[in-house]
Amino acid sequence: MPVPGPGYSITVRVEAPPSASAAGDLTSAVGRVGGVITAFDVVESHSDRVVVDITCNAMSANHARDITEALESLPGVAVRKVSDRTFLMHLGGKIEVTAKVALRNRDDLSRAYTPGVARICQAIAENPDDARRLTIKRNTVAVVTDGSAVLGLGNLGPAAALPVMEGKAALFKKFAGVDAWPVCLDTQDTEEIIRAVELIAPVYGGINLEDIAAPRCFEIEARLRDKLNIPVFHDDQHGTAICVVAALRNALRVVGKDMSAVRIVVCGVGAAGSAIIRLLSQRGPADIIAVDIDGIVHRGRENMDANMAWVAANTNRADVSGRLHDALVGADVFIGVSAPNLFGADQVATMAEGAVVFALANPDPEIDPLEAQKHAAVVATGRSDYPNQINNVLAFPGVFRGLLDAQAHGITDAMLLAAADALADIVDGDRLNPSFIVPSVFDAAVAPAVAEAVRKAATAG
Amino acid sequence: MPVPGPGYSITVRVEAPPSASAAGDLTSAVGRVGGVITAFDVVESHSDRVVVDITCNAMSANHARDITEALESLPGVAVRKVSDRTFLMHLGGKIEVTAKVALRNRDDLSRAYTPGVARICQAIAENPDDARRLTIKRNTVAVVTDGSAVLGLGNLGPAAALPVMEGKAALFKKFAGVDAWPVCLDTQDTEEIIRAVELIAPVYGGINLEDIAAPRCFEIEARLRDKLNIPVFHDDQHGTAICVVAALRNALRVVGKDMSAVRIVVCGVGAAGSAIIRLLSQRGPADIIAVDIDGIVHRGRENMDANMAWVAANTNRADVSGRLHDALVGADVFIGVSAPNLFGADQVATMAEGAVVFALANPDPEIDPLEAQKHAAVVATGRSDYPNQINNVLAFPGVFRGLLDAQAHGITDAMLLAAADALADIVDGDRLNPSFIVPSVFDAAVAPAVAEAVRKAATAG
Repeated sequence: MPVPGPGYSITVRVEAPPSASAAGDLTSAVGRVGGVITAFDVVESHSDRVVVDITCNAMSANHARDITEALESLPGVAVRKVSDRTFLMHLGGKIEVTAKVALRNRDDLSRAYTPGVARICQAIAENPDDARRLTIKRNTVAVVTDGSAVLGLGNLGPAAALPVMEGKAALFKKFAGVDAWPVCLDTQDTEEIIRAVELIAPVYGGINLEDIAAPRCFEIEARLRDKLNIPVFHDDQHGTAICVVAALRNALRVVGKDMSAVRIVVCGVGAAGSAIIRLLSQRGPADIIAVDIDGIVHRGRENMDANMAWVAANTNRADVSGRLHDALVGADVFIGVSAPNLFGADQVATMAEGAVVFALANPDPEIDPLEAQKHAAVVATGRSDYPNQINNVLAFPGVFRGLLDAQAHGITDAMLLAAADALADIVDGDRLNPSFIVPSVFDAAVAPAVAEAVRKAATAG
Repeated sequence: MPVPGPGYSITVRVEAPPSASAAGDLTSAVGRVGGVITAFDVVESHSDRVVVDITCNAMSANHARDITEALESLPGVAVRKVSDRTFLMHLGGKIEVTAKVALRNRDDLSRAYTPGVARICQAIAENPDDARRLTIKRNTVAVVTDGSAVLGLGNLGPAAALPVMEGKAALFKKFAGVDAWPVCLDTQDTEEIIRAVELIAPVYGGINLEDIAAPRCFEIEARLRDKLNIPVFHDDQHGTAICVVAALRNALRVVGKDMSAVRIVVCGVGAAGSAIIRLLSQRGPADIIAVDIDGIVHRGRENMDANMAWVAANTNRADVSGRLHDALVGADVFIGVSAPNLFGADQVATMAEGAVVFALANPDPEIDPLEAQKHAAVVATGRSDYPNQINNVLAFPGVFRGLLDAQAHGITDAMLLAAADALADIVDGDRLNPSFIVPSVFDAAVAPAVAEAVRKAATAG
């Protein structure tokens, strides 16, 4: 299922004969092995040779090697260098710290640093709330991870998680003007994580937990919400839940069903699945059936942790048991945040008329979306190469913009639901259709709308 | 002793009659109460009135009020608004986090974030050293405080310390291109501080401890140096020590004395004083006499902690006791990092011929420099309004630039001494004189020279 994409883009510098057919030979060679050329630049031209940079998308490291070998096998062609554009982009990291104030001369220094800064320190010591006015706390969020659940890659540790946190920080600034800073903790002990976040909190106006494994993430979040007077938001849980609730609201508009009438199967009861179930519950669907690797979650299941026990108690009204395939029969909605390739078109056919399928496992969804759409009325995935991409970047920048603007001391389900409604409402009736239930991640209207909704909900409380 | 300075600069907006004498009346009123006008801007002019912004330096909040009242007492003049320029500069904080990579479109997103970033994470997981190549760790320093010794203000706590840490981060970028980030810890427990710094370390290429009270700072630094594989530098100790060693080297050139022949009094045995004594000891002076509030430190003193015991054992060869005034008799050099107004010109007169006096207590030095220079050959302070300002900004940016460029795993006294020599050498023989023993903090040659010396010392090891 992988297709060549810009996430794996290489630039191959080759030396080739100056013949009329050289360009055609080079591009054909790349195409023959499945590479997709995105740029062809002649960087040197001589009477006896040309030097060309061929930039193309590949599927994997092996595929990149195939492309290079295909070029090298051409008569008279030599590969000089292969650059991986993703690695080039990461050299030295993706974010930096810059001064917002000028430091040109002695006067500037006297105000931004000693002696002038002493008065600012004293003002904050006398009135701690002034920290939100006179320091970066006003606009700054910590992106905290222990590296235990990095993307879909698993427990890579804090150093290897840093590129994701940097990327997140870049997105925070780009989409919502929020200053976000990576905090990659060298521990996976719940108590140590909680205490470390408490200790660093004075600098921040909010905490965004990221890529922390379940079930540890639930306790960390709950306890930090109790301890801190700034909002704590676990993006893998609540960012995903906001986007799913928004997308589902619009999908049900498309199929003409009411939330109170639909039965929803949620597959995967980790961080994302649990948060989706909790937030969806507040919207009053007819029923939610949670399914994990051991089958349908029901009240008689053994060895349930606190999170799973809550799910069992608050879903599955008829207390049925069985497998995913059983749960799908007659269901109106499938929401998967679990594992690749769990079912096919035949199972979608057993769902109710006007079925909605959100197959969000990354990078490979629970069902190939092309299979799903044979019988489903609306299909969404987490992929950028298929319509209806459900991507947290639709939620977290605006959510924190709103929380910071409100100087919120905490976060509630009402704020999360307000964010979901604002996100859904971006897609007006004229644009709504089965292939457009959520806006593009580059829609500049999204973050301000979400921020405004969150700010209002936060100040209303 | 305070004089009006730009650290306390106010802008007073006044409405005045449009008479020919109005400007003169306004400036005279400010001058009469001791304000120093730095700008006079007419912002509105009407037939019946003018609106003027008067910007002036003041000494204190009371002084600013005096200036405002002096203006308000003029006939026909009304003060509309008083703005404090230092507070205005601090609104919303002094630093921000910005992206170094473009995020214009889907391709950018695919490389900087998912799915492309996954390969970067995997590369670091496989080879942890790649974090120094592919993440911000390469250029990033944590500025860590517990807020227990903020400037000369004392224990203001972590939130009130943040403006200093932000200013430091701005200086790091301005002078050495280093990305520095404030870490203000909400604890003053030694064990918790050590553990918190260990936990956040994966993101950073170095740790700059700042404004942590003695003696806690000694243990924190020593234990972190053992635990971490990145350099740990306590600026209040080592930054100050580097600058003092450099300045003293040049002062001794001015007075024509050799280090091995001089007796040095160091007054104040906190973080800065202890570090100065330790670094100076390596330069082999004839003797160092340490003095604190209880008098001369000698081997018979009771209740000494580990740091003080080291100082007693490694200074004061003749094991004399007595007060500061006793120590000064016949001494070649006084270095004060203690408290204001401890002695006068009479005591300087008891020092050896060609005395060197570094009175570095801030904001008010151990002796008024104008008094000191009656009998001393070279006088330096920490003040910006007197020649020979000894300011840590001469050291820390270049030191960390060098450490990061060397990808250093630790820091040694050899590196600190290399930094001191590089700093001293910036002042060549043509420029060296009693009023110019250290370069200006705005001398662009300083940080690169210090960085290069540290880098060489770090890679030589």
